[in-house]
Amino acid sequence: MPIERADALALDAADPLAGFRDRFTEPEPGLIYLDGNSLGRLPRATRDRLVEVIDREWGGGLVRSWEHWIDLPVRVGDQLGTALLGAEPGQVLVADVTTVNLYKLAAAALDARPDRRVIVTAADEFPTDLYVLDGLAAARGLQVRVVAADPVHGPAPADVRAALDSDVALLCLSHVGYRSGALADLPGLTAAAHEVGALVLWDLSHAVGAVPIGLDAAGVDLATGCTYKYLNAGPGAPAFLYVNRALHGLARQPIWGWFGQRNQFTMAAGYDPEPDVRAFGTGTPAVLGLVGVEEGVRLLAEAGLDRLRAKGIALTELGIALTDAWLVPLGFDVASPRDSARRGSHLTLRHPEAWPVCAMLIDAAVIGDFRGPDGLRLGPAPLSTRFVELWDALDRLRSLVDAGEHHRYAGAARRVT
Amino acid sequence: MPIERADALALDAADPLAGFRDRFTEPEPGLIYLDGNSLGRLPRATRDRLVEVIDREWGGGLVRSWEHWIDLPVRVGDQLGTALLGAEPGQVLVADVTTVNLYKLAAAALDARPDRRVIVTAADEFPTDLYVLDGLAAARGLQVRVVAADPVHGPAPADVRAALDSDVALLCLSHVGYRSGALADLPGLTAAAHEVGALVLWDLSHAVGAVPIGLDAAGVDLATGCTYKYLNAGPGAPAFLYVNRALHGLARQPIWGWFGQRNQFTMAAGYDPEPDVRAFGTGTPAVLGLVGVEEGVRLLAEAGLDRLRAKGIALTELGIALTDAWLVPLGFDVASPRDSARRGSHLTLRHPEAWPVCAMLIDAAVIGDFRGPDGLRLGPAPLSTRFVELWDALDRLRSLVDAGEHHRYAGAARRVT
Repeated sequence: MPIERADALALDAADPLAGFRDRFTEPEPGLIYLDGNSLGRLPRATRDRLVEVIDREWGGGLVRSWEHWIDLPVRVGDQLGTALLGAEPGQVLVADVTTVNLYKLAAAALDARPDRRVIVTAADEFPTDLYVLDGLAAARGLQVRVVAADPVHGPAPADVRAALDSDVALLCLSHVGYRSGALADLPGLTAAAHEVGALVLWDLSHAVGAVPIGLDAAGVDLATGCTYKYLNAGPGAPAFLYVNRALHGLARQPIWGWFGQRNQFTMAAGYDPEPDVRAFGTGTPAVLGLVGVEEGVRLLAEAGLDRLRAKGIALTELGIALTDAWLVPLGFDVASPRDSARRGSHLTLRHPEAWPVCAMLIDAAVIGDFRGPDGLRLGPAPLSTRFVELWDALDRLRSLVDAGEHHRYAGAARRVT
Repeated sequence: MPIERADALALDAADPLAGFRDRFTEPEPGLIYLDGNSLGRLPRATRDRLVEVIDREWGGGLVRSWEHWIDLPVRVGDQLGTALLGAEPGQVLVADVTTVNLYKLAAAALDARPDRRVIVTAADEFPTDLYVLDGLAAARGLQVRVVAADPVHGPAPADVRAALDSDVALLCLSHVGYRSGALADLPGLTAAAHEVGALVLWDLSHAVGAVPIGLDAAGVDLATGCTYKYLNAGPGAPAFLYVNRALHGLARQPIWGWFGQRNQFTMAAGYDPEPDVRAFGTGTPAVLGLVGVEEGVRLLAEAGLDRLRAKGIALTELGIALTDAWLVPLGFDVASPRDSARRGSHLTLRHPEAWPVCAMLIDAAVIGDFRGPDGLRLGPAPLSTRFVELWDALDRLRSLVDAGEHHRYAGAARRVT
């Protein structure tokens, strides 16, 4: 039975999160934005809060505003951890970028397992994760053991387990893969690493705000992730990091900075780190970015992670059904797991001319993401994407490709992101 | 001859930079802000630009805006380097916080001198600098040789030279000391380090935008600094780093990230860093902060560093003269160099009850900075401080202390900054 536009409209009518779309500013009329997992939309509350912070707190309060800014990394970290990570307060800090946090956390883990020589990760992990691990391994003479990854389902749990042995210091993986959206078995793989005495570090960049995450329940050691995707915190907003309470005071990070120092404003000589997650801070927090994270977390918490997850599944299910009906006959493949329990909140389609297709869609007011060599990644953010937009986008896609329109984009210049 | 208020007004009338005050938003009427070296004021152009970036580029352009955001770290770095650092384009990047940059740069220097075992720095350096160096030394089994520092004039050049030998890998110092404002002999000490084959890393946080800096001319190897002081880039805006062209491709930093990767958006496996300063990037640039840096640099460049330096000297000279006339009899000391050629743009006064004095001044609408144990630091930013404000502030200070008002603040709670 064909899926009509009216069906998508009916899904929107029944959507308990539908009202959240008005909590965001609108770009140009008619634009269909399916790139929420590269840069989330601008929440209206964030816009207003940023202007207030700029005008009143910076312009008016000046240095006096540090009296309350100083607590932002921990306060926002606690909000984020409680609402979205399944983390009790005191274990999450908003600081630095994901790359720097990966470095700090992985280095701390390696220092905590000084007699072990191996880091385990998987192919198709986000490049910066692999680079960071390679850099640490090169500096310390360690080995990075890279588990093969299925392009759709990611690394097979059995392969990860097979790579774990008593020489492994650290297992580092993404909870949701950035290419296919494959959702890893976070509790199972965490337990497997612990069985051999290794620590785990999860990159939650494509998971946070889209799928439930239970860091405390799973006994995860370390985690980090960015905030400019489903958290809608803005371009280059600071990342977060999680350090399980059991490691506080034990795992020490390599970048000894004054924002990790106990009683930092006594300006004492001699590094004496905070006894908790604050020891993973470095320098002066990015206030505007932190405010963006706080507002973004507030919106997601109000929506509720269960409803977000349910809508994320419904959106990607609709996308898969329409792809099967319309796009597979035109040469597209579904390159994300078909089992929603194994999929995050984005949907990747494979097509040999994925870049021309992506460029064509941009001109047709549909913003997706090209992920080479042949992926078209659609990230319908549950908080702000309507079912009918996804329907319209894929309808536009089928019409254009059916008409051979994408061939006109064969030489289109690559976008940078 | 007493310095009358009319004399200060005359200095303002003759000040070629006087008009720049209107380029900043005003906090509450009557506030005298002498803490520009902890957090600079909000430029009106920055305010407007930030709102435009938030509304139009983030809210409207969404991920498409990365087409031009992607160049910000290098573009703003070049502007900053050319206008304020004496650095030819291609050597300055705006990225991360000062602490993380110190770490990356110092680690790169140590890797470039693998057979040397010593880092030289000085007592009274900013705490985060000392912590970072201690952390690197601890991780690598190196020694940090800490040169004694005079509380007013900083480390004596002869003492620094005496600490330099063929076992020194790195000399790391501040160009302007954060406590007393002592201005180091950057060219001379750079040459001295090079004579023994060491590399130099300068922390320019309290110098940039306040004093002329000739990094290329002095052959400086590495430098970093923050942007929220005299650059007025906003709370937690990203820092900058400088890597001399001669080190490009040779000095490699330890945090291998995708924003240091050649052709990063091909998402290739295997770290292959950019051949230039971009190799010192890590993760996604903080767009709002970068915009603040760009606008801040624009203002300073328009004012001109020579005029800024001249006014900075004139302001601190006025402060010293008034201190001698009014405050020394009340128990204050000048704790900054009296020779303007050896002083940056802030003035530190010593008083045994410096904290109560500082707290009292805040209630009297004069914002300075307490730097323990006994320092009151006044940072009259040349771009935005009027001579008469400094006169009024010190006049208020002498009246209040003369009346014993500061004793009422003996138990005042410490501000965090």
